[in-house]
Amino acid sequence: MSILVIGSVAFDSVETPFGKVEDILGGSATYFSTSASFFTDVNLVAVVGEDFPDDHLDFLRSRNIDLSGLQTMPGETFRWKGRYGYDLNEAQTLETHLNVFESFRPELPENYRDAEYVFLANIDPELQLEVLKQVKNPQLVACDTMNFWIEGKRDALLKTLPHVDILIINDAEARQLADEPNVIKAARKILTFGPKTLVVKRGEYGALMVSEHAVFSAPAYPLESVFDPTGAGDTFAGGFIGYLASTRNQSEACLRQAIVFGSVMASFTVEDFSLNRLRLLNSSEIEERFRTFKLLTHFDDL
Amino acid sequence: MSILVIGSVAFDSVETPFGKVEDILGGSATYFSTSASFFTDVNLVAVVGEDFPDDHLDFLRSRNIDLSGLQTMPGETFRWKGRYGYDLNEAQTLETHLNVFESFRPELPENYRDAEYVFLANIDPELQLEVLKQVKNPQLVACDTMNFWIEGKRDALLKTLPHVDILIINDAEARQLADEPNVIKAARKILTFGPKTLVVKRGEYGALMVSEHAVFSAPAYPLESVFDPTGAGDTFAGGFIGYLASTRNQSEACLRQAIVFGSVMASFTVEDFSLNRLRLLNSSEIEERFRTFKLLTHFDDL
Repeated sequence: MSILVIGSVAFDSVETPFGKVEDILGGSATYFSTSASFFTDVNLVAVVGEDFPDDHLDFLRSRNIDLSGLQTMPGETFRWKGRYGYDLNEAQTLETHLNVFESFRPELPENYRDAEYVFLANIDPELQLEVLKQVKNPQLVACDTMNFWIEGKRDALLKTLPHVDILIINDAEARQLADEPNVIKAARKILTFGPKTLVVKRGEYGALMVSEHAVFSAPAYPLESVFDPTGAGDTFAGGFIGYLASTRNQSEACLRQAIVFGSVMASFTVEDFSLNRLRLLNSSEIEERFRTFKLLTHFDDL
Repeated sequence: MSILVIGSVAFDSVETPFGKVEDILGGSATYFSTSASFFTDVNLVAVVGEDFPDDHLDFLRSRNIDLSGLQTMPGETFRWKGRYGYDLNEAQTLETHLNVFESFRPELPENYRDAEYVFLANIDPELQLEVLKQVKNPQLVACDTMNFWIEGKRDALLKTLPHVDILIINDAEARQLADEPNVIKAARKILTFGPKTLVVKRGEYGALMVSEHAVFSAPAYPLESVFDPTGAGDTFAGGFIGYLASTRNQSEACLRQAIVFGSVMASFTVEDFSLNRLRLLNSSEIEERFRTFKLLTHFDDL
């Protein structure tokens, strides 16, 4: 089962306490697709400028990612520049240049319109809805967003959310969206906005999945060296939705395993800059780390 | 198997967004003892002033806590005043009056000196060591500390730690003690200071237990209303050590269950001011919440 993803393909410049890189491959759709590609096929919708190099395209194609929805437009590719301090929990954005993304109006290729699994990465909620309207009969729609849209395009976001099955956002975003400091109360409120399931990403503390009848708490992998957290959230979403699409099952049990696969994938991404770690990853490493998550959380019944 | 605890018995004045109370029963030894008393007998070592009311003593006795090590001295009982904001994660200390605690030199009653399980609550590390020297042959020594001692009495703390089996501190304290921002690396370093096991309390994110060969991650209970976090850490330690003492077993499996019992007990304490929730608690509620923790974290193997 293939997944349709709309998001950014970008150049990132990143500074962490451990190093500094410029104009490396990044973007929400890039991280999501690469991560999901370990589980299923991916159809990517995004835009790049004429400066985007062929070897990045070749890498995405090598992961079996369909690029027929990736437009190339005159101008420069989206660029983001950020810096992390020692706690690595939050990026300080230094520069954002939307470039070709500014005038991007996604038009889905015909073969994308039958998509059953859709991931709307963190872009303007109006664009998210525009894309969704072009998909004939989606079975599962997942969506990310951020403080910028929660503040600046709240109405548009609240129009998009009723079409979303699973919202995947971080702690602070959940609290802000619900205007409620308690994350569980915030989750309950967000479920009234449309999504059936809320996944709260908590960085080094893992993830929380809340639906009407269940709460699931998954830890993050206890890494001794987090090198660069950029892309961790989109990689998480890629593993999560990728696994769900591969099983074609949305039971609570599958959703929980999917959360763990998301956490597994994110734990690899943060071990190096850009997609460097994912480039070297294989499926036995993924399964091994899944088992380590089981050991990490297991305790005996009474 | 009974536990010896040394710590504070105090009057707390607390302000949270949900209410305000003055001179209510508090103190590390109070929370620890009450929590542990659901699992085993407790011998308490502490000091109070002449202003300490009999009904508080009666409550502690009603929990089968041995008070022969509780001294009453001329003067006033230790008082703490603090305030929490909406995130409830960190208390802002407004006032601390050590009062009778200032000149407290603990002298263990004879019947306490055979203690096999010892909890050194968060007090001056010199006092912790002084108490420990009076215990003949302790089988398990657990210890708490805080930023104040890590900064101000680091040498004394580093002299106490080689006698400690399990150190129970929070995230920020672990990072500060090890001078290392990554919590797993910090844990590895702290294990070289003496303790065989480090338990890192992470508030609403749960707890992490690190020993040489294993890492265990437990979530916090996803409460919709946290009323007052005061005493949560000591209540956690009480459930943790209380359960361990009741089983007389220190296997990894028991340590993990003990962490969950600690989390269970803490989740009750924060539901009300002071020890109000623990006063009403019964063991079937404890077991029921343990099972809910299991449901909260369970996912299927591959």
